[in-house]
Amino acid sequence: MCGIFGIMGHPEAANLAYLGLYALQHRGQESAGIVSCEGTAFHEARHMGQVAEVFPGEVLRRLRGDAAIGHVRYSTSGSSELGNAQPFRIRYHAGEIAIAHNGNLTNAGTIRKQLETAGSIFQTSSDTEVILHLVARCRLANVEEALVDALRKVEGAYSIVVIARDRVIAARDPHGFRPLCIGRLDGSVCFASETCAFDLIGAEFVRDVEPGEIVVAERGGVRSVHPFPPAPAHRCIFEFVYFSRPDSRLFGQSVSLARKRMGAELAMEQPAEADIVVPVPDSGMNAALGFSEKSGIPLEFGLIRNHYVGRTFIEPQQSIRHFGVKIKLNPARDLIAGKRVVLVDDSIVRGTTSRKIVTMVREAGAREIHVRISCPPTIAPCFYGVDTPLRAELIAANNTVDEIRRFIGADSLGYLSLEGLRRAVGSSQGFCAACYSNDYPVPVEGTDVAQMKLFEKPRR
Amino acid sequence: MCGIFGIMGHPEAANLAYLGLYALQHRGQESAGIVSCEGTAFHEARHMGQVAEVFPGEVLRRLRGDAAIGHVRYSTSGSSELGNAQPFRIRYHAGEIAIAHNGNLTNAGTIRKQLETAGSIFQTSSDTEVILHLVARCRLANVEEALVDALRKVEGAYSIVVIARDRVIAARDPHGFRPLCIGRLDGSVCFASETCAFDLIGAEFVRDVEPGEIVVAERGGVRSVHPFPPAPAHRCIFEFVYFSRPDSRLFGQSVSLARKRMGAELAMEQPAEADIVVPVPDSGMNAALGFSEKSGIPLEFGLIRNHYVGRTFIEPQQSIRHFGVKIKLNPARDLIAGKRVVLVDDSIVRGTTSRKIVTMVREAGAREIHVRISCPPTIAPCFYGVDTPLRAELIAANNTVDEIRRFIGADSLGYLSLEGLRRAVGSSQGFCAACYSNDYPVPVEGTDVAQMKLFEKPRR
Amino acid sequence: MCGIFGIMGHPEAANLAYLGLYALQHRGQESAGIVSCEGTAFHEARHMGQVAEVFPGEVLRRLRGDAAIGHVRYSTSGSSELGNAQPFRIRYHAGEIAIAHNGNLTNAGTIRKQLETAGSIFQTSSDTEVILHLVARCRLANVEEALVDALRKVEGAYSIVVIARDRVIAARDPHGFRPLCIGRLDGSVCFASETCAFDLIGAEFVRDVEPGEIVVAERGGVRSVHPFPPAPAHRCIFEFVYFSRPDSRLFGQSVSLARKRMGAELAMEQPAEADIVVPVPDSGMNAALGFSEKSGIPLEFGLIRNHYVGRTFIEPQQSIRHFGVKIKLNPARDLIAGKRVVLVDDSIVRGTTSRKIVTMVREAGAREIHVRISCPPTIAPCFYGVDTPLRAELIAANNTVDEIRRFIGADSLGYLSLEGLRRAVGSSQGFCAACYSNDYPVPVEGTDVAQMKLFEKPRR
Amino acid sequence: MCGIFGIMGHPEAANLAYLGLYALQHRGQESAGIVSCEGTAFHEARHMGQVAEVFPGEVLRRLRGDAAIGHVRYSTSGSSELGNAQPFRIRYHAGEIAIAHNGNLTNAGTIRKQLETAGSIFQTSSDTEVILHLVARCRLANVEEALVDALRKVEGAYSIVVIARDRVIAARDPHGFRPLCIGRLDGSVCFASETCAFDLIGAEFVRDVEPGEIVVAERGGVRSVHPFPPAPAHRCIFEFVYFSRPDSRLFGQSVSLARKRMGAELAMEQPAEADIVVPVPDSGMNAALGFSEKSGIPLEFGLIRNHYVGRTFIEPQQSIRHFGVKIKLNPARDLIAGKRVVLVDDSIVRGTTSRKIVTMVREAGAREIHVRISCPPTIAPCFYGVDTPLRAELIAANNTVDEIRRFIGADSLGYLSLEGLRRAVGSSQGFCAACYSNDYPVPVEGTDVAQMKLFEKPRR
Repeated sequence: MCGIFGIMGHPEAANLAYLGLYALQHRGQESAGIVSCEGTAFHEARHMGQVAEVFPGEVLRRLRGDAAIGHVRYSTSGSSELGNAQPFRIRYHAGEIAIAHNGNLTNAGTIRKQLETAGSIFQTSSDTEVILHLVARCRLANVEEALVDALRKVEGAYSIVVIARDRVIAARDPHGFRPLCIGRLDGSVCFASETCAFDLIGAEFVRDVEPGEIVVAERGGVRSVHPFPPAPAHRCIFEFVYFSRPDSRLFGQSVSLARKRMGAELAMEQPAEADIVVPVPDSGMNAALGFSEKSGIPLEFGLIRNHYVGRTFIEPQQSIRHFGVKIKLNPARDLIAGKRVVLVDDSIVRGTTSRKIVTMVREAGAREIHVRISCPPTIAPCFYGVDTPLRAELIAANNTVDEIRRFIGADSLGYLSLEGLRRAVGSSQGFCAACYSNDYPVPVEGTDVAQMKLFEKPRR
Repeated sequence: MCGIFGIMGHPEAANLAYLGLYALQHRGQESAGIVSCEGTAFHEARHMGQVAEVFPGEVLRRLRGDAAIGHVRYSTSGSSELGNAQPFRIRYHAGEIAIAHNGNLTNAGTIRKQLETAGSIFQTSSDTEVILHLVARCRLANVEEALVDALRKVEGAYSIVVIARDRVIAARDPHGFRPLCIGRLDGSVCFASETCAFDLIGAEFVRDVEPGEIVVAERGGVRSVHPFPPAPAHRCIFEFVYFSRPDSRLFGQSVSLARKRMGAELAMEQPAEADIVVPVPDSGMNAALGFSEKSGIPLEFGLIRNHYVGRTFIEPQQSIRHFGVKIKLNPARDLIAGKRVVLVDDSIVRGTTSRKIVTMVREAGAREIHVRISCPPTIAPCFYGVDTPLRAELIAANNTVDEIRRFIGADSLGYLSLEGLRRAVGSSQGFCAACYSNDYPVPVEGTDVAQMKLFEKPRR
Repeated sequence: MCGIFGIMGHPEAANLAYLGLYALQHRGQESAGIVSCEGTAFHEARHMGQVAEVFPGEVLRRLRGDAAIGHVRYSTSGSSELGNAQPFRIRYHAGEIAIAHNGNLTNAGTIRKQLETAGSIFQTSSDTEVILHLVARCRLANVEEALVDALRKVEGAYSIVVIARDRVIAARDPHGFRPLCIGRLDGSVCFASETCAFDLIGAEFVRDVEPGEIVVAERGGVRSVHPFPPAPAHRCIFEFVYFSRPDSRLFGQSVSLARKRMGAELAMEQPAEADIVVPVPDSGMNAALGFSEKSGIPLEFGLIRNHYVGRTFIEPQQSIRHFGVKIKLNPARDLIAGKRVVLVDDSIVRGTTSRKIVTMVREAGAREIHVRISCPPTIAPCFYGVDTPLRAELIAANNTVDEIRRFIGADSLGYLSLEGLRRAVGSSQGFCAACYSNDYPVPVEGTDVAQMKLFEKPRR
Repeated sequence: MCGIFGIMGHPEAANLAYLGLYALQHRGQESAGIVSCEGTAFHEARHMGQVAEVFPGEVLRRLRGDAAIGHVRYSTSGSSELGNAQPFRIRYHAGEIAIAHNGNLTNAGTIRKQLETAGSIFQTSSDTEVILHLVARCRLANVEEALVDALRKVEGAYSIVVIARDRVIAARDPHGFRPLCIGRLDGSVCFASETCAFDLIGAEFVRDVEPGEIVVAERGGVRSVHPFPPAPAHRCIFEFVYFSRPDSRLFGQSVSLARKRMGAELAMEQPAEADIVVPVPDSGMNAALGFSEKSGIPLEFGLIRNHYVGRTFIEPQQSIRHFGVKIKLNPARDLIAGKRVVLVDDSIVRGTTSRKIVTMVREAGAREIHVRISCPPTIAPCFYGVDTPLRAELIAANNTVDEIRRFIGADSLGYLSLEGLRRAVGSSQGFCAACYSNDYPVPVEGTDVAQMKLFEKPRR
């Protein structure tokens, strides 16, 4: 779970990277970083924390130059330390480069071991650093050729932007797991994980970087190469369900509309006799609207989200029931009391949060509670870039739907089917849905899959 | 614009005050403070900033004792400095007390001048300090009697909580401008500006403090006195329109339902031929839903709010169109493009923000834009506790509705009438609507009304 | 123990106050503050900590204006909190003023009680605030007249500087306990506790403010008044022994020379058979030199002071012998081993530090250790502005010289006599030596003298 | 200019490293760092700033384990950034190690270029990192063997301590440029640049690490190897003149006594007709005492040092004469006025500071000023670990003694001869005196010697 941004040829490169990262903040709140290039001088700022806090004006002013790349991170691989905050920047025999990476390499461990035996010193625990050492070991002086050489050796999911003295390079792995888009602003070229970054800076969306494509933006223009053999597409379907912002266009479609269609499909597959449809804010909003429209059951904003949630919150010693949920959500009792409620959310991971929400809504006076989830049960961890809890912690990996229903205390529980989800995103092919199907399109080295963590959804 | 909280007789008094303030954060984000009392020792923490940030665990642990009061502040009277952050705490001849105040005294200037001439030294520029000096000048040793004596001398709007060694006192001015509620938790008594604070800490809502009532919570029990002559009620109608949280019960009603009724009234008074109803998040949500239901025009979440807005944001030098709005809102183009849009919001103050939103929605492809506001035009500043811009800056004070429509660039513009608003809140009496009617129920000393600021709405 | 500074009529008033305080840092390291006046606007900065740390450039730049006063504090009266950091600044009926005070009022408690009963609210626990309330209660609009009126009511020790809109006023109590000097720089007038402050800013020392004199510096010139009846001088003799800087002129004399004479008197009164004279740095340096010259025993720098002592220092759990002393001082073994050593210091307070030093020097190989103290035994606390431990903690108040010698482990111990000290400062009259004589020249209200703290010497 | 410390086998290893660094603070104030080892886990803290500030209690508590190394740094090689703060810590094929280095490698640039060409990625601009890459490239799994292998390839000055999972290794280059000592504490072994570090922690000084010796401290005991061919000793004579602490034993001698002998030699070589001898504190103290004793001219503490100098100091816009010196030193006028003064200092680098001191002393009333320097003129930069200004900035490299005398404004100026200095340190052989003789014992790669910086003496 990361967001990346790159821009070449704009006098305010770092400022625009900053804004681009700000628009991509939902993809990672743990750390943020920008590397800019001014002639041959690189400037860098990386911090733990969110974009709007960690780049005060004086820091941004230091990031001079007409090229920049940036990264927001929610740890996928590597631990939570500043040292793992990207972009990573190195000096090697052919000069200086920096890289920002979204995704997860599946053979990083093997390569790292080989490189260390040969005398390489790794500075981080991140899989991304493997790419840099492969580039440094390559005798080719041309950074683009060395990068292609390095990427030929790695497997798995990567959307990356790389900055060198005179160019910004964007690359997407041959399967296209993670998104990456090309934009244009005042004659400069920019790259971003999602189109919402272009909206904020006023850039025009041009097209997606294609799976397996490498796009090189230089001061003189843009080039594209396809150095890898063709491969089947495995775009991440979870980006539609939860991860991407609703105002983004993703893999050629509107995220908002896809979610509304999920809600409509859900209303057909899993109807409910009820008085009102209540979304779990904010990710369940569009699906709830789709459900309401298709079912004819009126929508109500029966759960109110607190907008001032801080990073660390002191819980009183004397336990308050459902405190962790209450600090974020509060029911509007007068809307809910005495009603039969359809509660629409986009996932149940461990089940504990859903259980608290259901209890809270029932205590607010709901007569019946029918939980509807706008995707299939999450049964398998992701190895392609979404941060995940262990499979053992995953309620749907180990329980039937009815067991889950009883655990969360709902009167009924219904999930959207994988076919319904595929209908909603308009295609039965070209997507990775391993987290719903346990069917991994790219093998993962030495993984005891049962022990891996499954995605832990940060509420936004 | 402030929120207050008080609790007497609970072992975790300060922790609960902290949570109560957190739930009242929408009433003031400038500063936060808590004073607790442990036997005869007072403990205090006040900071600029938001609740979740300014009370780290070690600070809360210092705030020992079974009684506490707290305050969140958005400056109404007095400048933005830590010195003006409440609660104010003093030591005087009869001991130590602290006070937290929501509202605005209309004769504070005159009293302050008299007290200073007699040798009093004021520490702040806040009207609230006048109450403390009146208490200190009173020869009565009983804090409750001295407080009543002081309150007899002040006029205007006040909901206050006061903490002394052995009691927490809550008081509401005879007109009841600002809200104040009584709750109960585990045998302790608590007070809060809104009921949402009780929901978070798991307290039971008992009733409102009545206009002119003084409620004294002691370790042995609760007493109530009504020392002032009866007066007509002037409850703030703007609390319903914008200020209170939708999940609160206010003056005996649901805020969410009142807003939905405003939307429904608006749909009847100001109908529009359109394809979709789009709320301006978050304050326009319920009114938009009411409008959609009454009009039959479907709701769409066509404006997406960014949840990661920081306090200080660096704008790029090269101006980005509508940057200030874009940083908070982004249109979901695919929902809006080609549509006739009803845009529902809860106010137009200066008009500049509305103008940016309308332009942004039009650039996203809307065919027609019909702006509907769920209250009457704001034509007059508030002197009873809502922070306000100057009357001269207030677009509706100086322009016709059609002039405003042209300024913001909408195809049509409609406001809810004052009668419609009163119908929506269920009563044509007992409310102060001075900001819509220019009819002030309590006179304001020496005010050049034309120069006063009118409310500047912080988006939440 | 405080230092004060004031300047009127210089375009860089706050910068010079900052430098003046820096030169007076030895008089107080707990807090520092400056108030400047620019036309009618007052600017203020007060912080816990030392001068060179607590006034970064941007803070100093805010302190505009051509007049300023400043204060460094080591708590005498009132607890260690920012609220007690001076200068104190108030707004009252006749405008704004601020005050900085060195000394201790002996009747502050009684006056404070009277003022509180009459309705005054005190903000600090400091005796200095009494002066401000007396000024605010005075109906005279002229600040100078009101200040004289207030000072007539207080007793004890005070050297003060006061800043008002158009003047800086310096005053010294009729007994002249604490020092205060007048200087001149580029046509402006300045005041400081010691002349070393003038040296740093390049000001010329003019003369001392006389006991009982009030000097008023206005933009047009300087005036002097003597509003109080004449009184006998009681200048603090301890300023010569320890407190003032050796490069200052104090009460008309050189501090360095006075200390050398103390050492010479000590060599005559308390001779020793020894090989070397070793000063305890830094305060014992001049006395050791005087002792060495008079006795003919060579000086050696046998104790080395660590210059990097930080404010908070983590002591290892496993106790290191004499750690607290070692962190500040280390013996140069090769100078000391096998020698008979005269150790010259300027005081023994509790005796614990001296004991550690003696043991450390003996462990470094000294054959004999003869401790010589350049003043009489400290037997009584100070109530006139020097911070003091309780009398009970004072080793010389409760033990004979021989008992002290045994406690600290020296082979011999000799103190300078009071007569010898008076000879060294050149006068048998006009000095307060209460800490050595227990003879208090001004009575102290309601003090259980036995319980008062005596000075705790901060090593510099 | 750096200080290093190491300890193996003590339960409070990091605390003792902290204290050891504190005692070595004079060797470097720019950054400080500690790496401890607890079983197989390494803990690390590195910061810009001084020891007493940068290791708060909670940081020290994190540094668990019974082995630790530490470093204080004043940049010699590599720029002033946290990234260059040592110890450097890496993970490589054989595990984790960290290193702290005092000195300067003379062939680091050549080796670095070779390693980068072979694919190594350097993280710092420091010469020390070369040693780590050589270790990582070595296929030997034993860290001790790999370290010897690496040290065989480097040339120049190094005293180092290295920590691995189960041992702390100390090494000193074959010429012994920089000091390194072995101590013993409670059965544990420790290493430090100077013996004053042992004094503070209560450790016993055992002996110096010999030139070319490698000492390995393991939990079971200590071993020593001499893997390099014998080489002539080139111990740094400047350590005696200025750099080491006077209470340290260095290369088998007392620093204090060596400095006193320099002063005595100086008095014989460069006598002066004068009334008083005044040391420039603090480094000139012992030499001044030696001069005074030998010449019979009495010592006076005529220059007072301010002990509260902060790191950043705001200079007033209006220039104060000699401000930079005055902030640190102030003359005691009464001691100096009318006197013929011998001013004893330990070096003149650029001459500007000496010029300010001479002017300041003359303005304080000195009749004549005879400057005496306790070492020869500094004419050449150091390439073995002392931070140096460019040769062009070095006044003695480009001017005669009489020209320097005129520049600083003294009545006479005398330096100690190199022979006199050698007599004072007791040996005409075995010392590097390149900074005085321009005779470099180890060649320096590709250096344009004329452009190198010469030592910039930080006053302590």
